[in-house]
Amino acid sequence: MEYYSGHIGKLIEELSKLPSIGQKTATRLAFSIIQMPPEQAHALADSITAARDNLHFCKECFNICDSEICPICANSKRNHKQIMVVESPRDLAAYEKTKQYQGVYHVLHGVIAPLLGVGPSDIKLKELMVRLQGDVDEVIIATNASHEGEATAMLISKYVKPSGIKVSRIASGVPVGSEIELIDEMTLKRALDGRTEL
Amino acid sequence: MEYYSGHIGKLIEELSKLPSIGQKTATRLAFSIIQMPPEQAHALADSITAARDNLHFCKECFNICDSEICPICANSKRNHKQIMVVESPRDLAAYEKTKQYQGVYHVLHGVIAPLLGVGPSDIKLKELMVRLQGDVDEVIIATNASHEGEATAMLISKYVKPSGIKVSRIASGVPVGSEIELIDEMTLKRALDGRTEL
Repeated sequence: MEYYSGHIGKLIEELSKLPSIGQKTATRLAFSIIQMPPEQAHALADSITAARDNLHFCKECFNICDSEICPICANSKRNHKQIMVVESPRDLAAYEKTKQYQGVYHVLHGVIAPLLGVGPSDIKLKELMVRLQGDVDEVIIATNASHEGEATAMLISKYVKPSGIKVSRIASGVPVGSEIELIDEMTLKRALDGRTEL
Repeated sequence: MEYYSGHIGKLIEELSKLPSIGQKTATRLAFSIIQMPPEQAHALADSITAARDNLHFCKECFNICDSEICPICANSKRNHKQIMVVESPRDLAAYEKTKQYQGVYHVLHGVIAPLLGVGPSDIKLKELMVRLQGDVDEVIIATNASHEGEATAMLISKYVKPSGIKVSRIASGVPVGSEIELIDEMTLKRALDGRTEL
């Protein structure tokens, strides 16, 4: 960005490294940053450094947290015998927002994707098996409804079942509020297969 | 963002203060930042602080720069007798990218917008008049083709004309590559009014 001064050119360059931030968006963001009150710009810079440098994973569930154990695992009111397996901390947050789940989680940090070279040892699967040696009633698999998510769910199910622990998979079907005519065939098939009696 | 740890929650909060960055985009960006190599995250944070703290305006044209005088004003090969008046440093950069303009600039940092309480004294208009006391042949007004941009252009023209300096306005018309049937009436009228003989 030879058209801008060194500092702002550098800022545009760094911002455009972020996912889905192109040159134009980076330029817009950079100009808004230099027009911020200084304390707001400093707060943004500090929050980046603090978040990156204080990145810890919960020793129990591998959620991202600030301490050794995340607030969910540290909460004695949660049902520690029920473990929901999710792909990422964002999926965990999505379920937490529903306020409907009272168990604990296990964050895999990925899914098995042989074509991308991601095997069972590249995700937190061994760690899940270690946790299951404790007092656990049910494992709820909440990986995405993608090919990789399904394959990972199948594998976890295969590993867990011999231990006698109940294994379940979250339902796949038509999203609430959607129009059936706009839903893809695969989802409609799933919704049909997973129908429940009324 | 109670679902995320303190540091990442704070980062999401700071990111979502940026223009057109909502909660979802901020979350996505925050997760990409904590997964960056530490040196990349630090470079991003440092570039924010450096750009904000080293914000200088060129003493001549009020472009954003790192030194007292911007590289354009410091360039003796540019025609210092021709001044293009633009609203913002981004507009300046847009014209610089064309590589077609050899004169210098004057950045107003805004336009007159009475409804928003922005008067002539809120933009770098007085500073332009001071520059025009020097040896200047032409003032090219390149404010946006908006109501405020037009009103500002009219006012500048009224101020400058008595001095005998040539005042021109960039052409307004149909953009190159666009389809006439999709262009708004106002632009079509301008394109007609500004027609040139072939």
